Amino acid sequence: MTPYKMLSARAIAIDIAAGRMKPGDALKQADLAIDQHEEKLRVFSHRAESTRPGKKGLPLAGVSVGIKDVFDTFDMPTCYGSKIYPDHQPVSDAALVTMLRQAGATIAGKTVTTEFAWFTPGATRNPNNTAFTPGGSSSGSAAGVAAGFFAAAIGTQTGGSIIRPAAFCGVSGYKPSFRLFPTVGMKHFSWSLDTIGFFAASAADVAFVAQACSGRDLAVDNAHATPPRFGLYRSTIDSRMEDTMAAALKRVTRQIKSRGGSVATVRGPKAVENARAAHAPIQGLEARLALGDETARHRAKLSKKLRDYLQDCQSISPQDYDDARRIANRARKACHGLFDSCDVLLLPSAPGTAPRTIKSTGDSIFNQLWTLMGLPCVNVCVGRDENNLPIGLQVIAPFGKDQRALQAAHWLESNLAVIDAASKG
Amino acid sequence: MTPYKMLSARAIAIDIAAGRMKPGDALKQADLAIDQHEEKLRVFSHRAESTRPGKKGLPLAGVSVGIKDVFDTFDMPTCYGSKIYPDHQPVSDAALVTMLRQAGATIAGKTVTTEFAWFTPGATRNPNNTAFTPGGSSSGSAAGVAAGFFAAAIGTQTGGSIIRPAAFCGVSGYKPSFRLFPTVGMKHFSWSLDTIGFFAASAADVAFVAQACSGRDLAVDNAHATPPRFGLYRSTIDSRMEDTMAAALKRVTRQIKSRGGSVATVRGPKAVENARAAHAPIQGLEARLALGDETARHRAKLSKKLRDYLQDCQSISPQDYDDARRIANRARKACHGLFDSCDVLLLPSAPGTAPRTIKSTGDSIFNQLWTLMGLPCVNVCVGRDENNLPIGLQVIAPFGKDQRALQAAHWLESNLAVIDAASKG
Repeated sequence: MTPYKMLSARAIAIDIAAGRMKPGDALKQADLAIDQHEEKLRVFSHRAESTRPGKKGLPLAGVSVGIKDVFDTFDMPTCYGSKIYPDHQPVSDAALVTMLRQAGATIAGKTVTTEFAWFTPGATRNPNNTAFTPGGSSSGSAAGVAAGFFAAAIGTQTGGSIIRPAAFCGVSGYKPSFRLFPTVGMKHFSWSLDTIGFFAASAADVAFVAQACSGRDLAVDNAHATPPRFGLYRSTIDSRMEDTMAAALKRVTRQIKSRGGSVATVRGPKAVENARAAHAPIQGLEARLALGDETARHRAKLSKKLRDYLQDCQSISPQDYDDARRIANRARKACHGLFDSCDVLLLPSAPGTAPRTIKSTGDSIFNQLWTLMGLPCVNVCVGRDENNLPIGLQVIAPFGKDQRALQAAHWLESNLAVIDAASKG
Repeated sequence: MTPYKMLSARAIAIDIAAGRMKPGDALKQADLAIDQHEEKLRVFSHRAESTRPGKKGLPLAGVSVGIKDVFDTFDMPTCYGSKIYPDHQPVSDAALVTMLRQAGATIAGKTVTTEFAWFTPGATRNPNNTAFTPGGSSSGSAAGVAAGFFAAAIGTQTGGSIIRPAAFCGVSGYKPSFRLFPTVGMKHFSWSLDTIGFFAASAADVAFVAQACSGRDLAVDNAHATPPRFGLYRSTIDSRMEDTMAAALKRVTRQIKSRGGSVATVRGPKAVENARAAHAPIQGLEARLALGDETARHRAKLSKKLRDYLQDCQSISPQDYDDARRIANRARKACHGLFDSCDVLLLPSAPGTAPRTIKSTGDSIFNQLWTLMGLPCVNVCVGRDENNLPIGLQVIAPFGKDQRALQAAHWLESNLAVIDAASKG
């Protein structure tokens, strides 16, 4: 077991509203955890100098949030994980940061991101075991929630940068439907893919935070006890699953059925599978343009890995890009067919648990297609492997049905907990 | 007649390539025009300290470009037309600025924008008559091209901010298909609508510049002499047309037919007309979020007009917004039906010529729907009214058929010029 205790954003709000807790209490608890473990975990690129709770009565008063360091903040440096911007101080907040502040959240600090939210790792370690990657690119946001440094965090996903670190760190990660939350004031890597999302202790917690800052109806509900109809999505890349993951999928399928849920197998539509190859040219051409200034003026300060990638992307023509966009658009329309016989899909969040390395953030192969399709995804921690590393599955709903994804993830978390308790009892 | 001589980007490139002109010649000519008229016209929010031509051999070497002051530039202040950012110096270039520099363009300076590219006017005057508005929000970019201050300029359109000032100033304005050009590094007002575009002396010139910086096949061609089939789009807002505009439409219709083109009447599809009302809630909710930080921290430095607008936008719910997005998406699909019997649509660029005021930038009612639909639009100057103010019509093509819109605009310009010459001869 780890020495960390996650904070529940929802429980904090409930306890404060009920007078069982003062707004500053959770912040103090978080500060202690940070003081004790930050040196080892390196969650922050910049820690807030002091934290004060938001105005009483606001939904996120007393809830602290870590901000991935690709979002501009007017009062803290924003460095995008890049050597090009060691002390960059933006003049304004990103839109989502303002939304969080206005809902009463306390900004705990800026969290470590890989370089420009791509693959070159930052300094953050996995709280479950520091020899393993926390995943990326939202490394600090996921690890910080896992370590109880803050009750929630925001991140971005262009390939698999929310779901994968959530899975590797064992927290809830919610990648919303594409453009449900504004990207204004974030550093873009690929504007057709960059999607903003949330981390928190559980599906109920991410849903609570996302609802509180957006005014959207996202919160989950224990009264909705009807078990979801899950669809196990099968595809050509299933061979990339590690044994632990394949075994977990089988076990969870049994467990869902034992709790009254159903699990059907879903294959195709073919148009969706065909779009898998469209992610790379879209991301590549856009990244080359989005980082055009950095490449032109600061080439030597880019990591070699990113420099080489952007160089390779020079070969992607506007025609390649347009073709890929057309394939992706066709696939997005075909996504309806995925849900003919189920409410939500169930898939691995990653090929396996976190790899034993800090030189890579792992593989986003199980995430790219769903980022490209723009569908809402929620990571659920369904168990742990022999190294005590979390195993993550993702629940995926139709476009715009974010609440359904969150609700199904909540059902799964709750019922797995019941099974877990029973097996120990 | 006005004392200004527009620069042709395409002619400059051809003359330089043929050795008839040195790369610095057009820049010198532009500098003279600026020195002489900037005090009166106020095109620039920041003029470049010195201008040097780009590397010989690059397509835009010798071509100077005005950059609307909502695009970040690493070497010039960027103030978004707002009192909040009087001396703001960004750390990097917007993606499109890098694209222009890499194609060899010279940045002439930052051009005046209305406040955050919305409706509160800047200082720019209309070169055709300084008592009349140049239009907005890309006021400086359009006026600067009209006055020969630079060969081309970039701007943005959220309502009608490219087509309208192009029409009022009498230049070619090209609003590309939505997201054809990257918005990375521009200040957003409404990310589902904000569209980047170009100004230049003629359709052939905007096409040349847009192609040169993007590598996309956009250039127009005199060999394509087949007259386009135009569709005169009729709708409920036609009553908003002023007499001058209605008369110009009739005249141009006759002229098109006299040159072998056809003009059909297009009404509906109904789904497209239904989307007209969807522009306001989409823009409103997004503007409120995009300018959330400015509203929260600098309210007093916003114009009263914008402050009141953003306050009113508080009443737009996520549900209103989602409904509007759904209506707009449905309409975008229905847009195919617009082109059943024509290649391109022909519409007024504005209700009439530039209003006699500098306190308003005019009305975007003839533009909003097409911005929302994301279709490529090109303004063509088809004549002048009794005050010598330009009359603009817009040519609109299906999504992604930008070259068709530019080609048809070029055909119209060329054939109207032939008619004009004949009537004078």
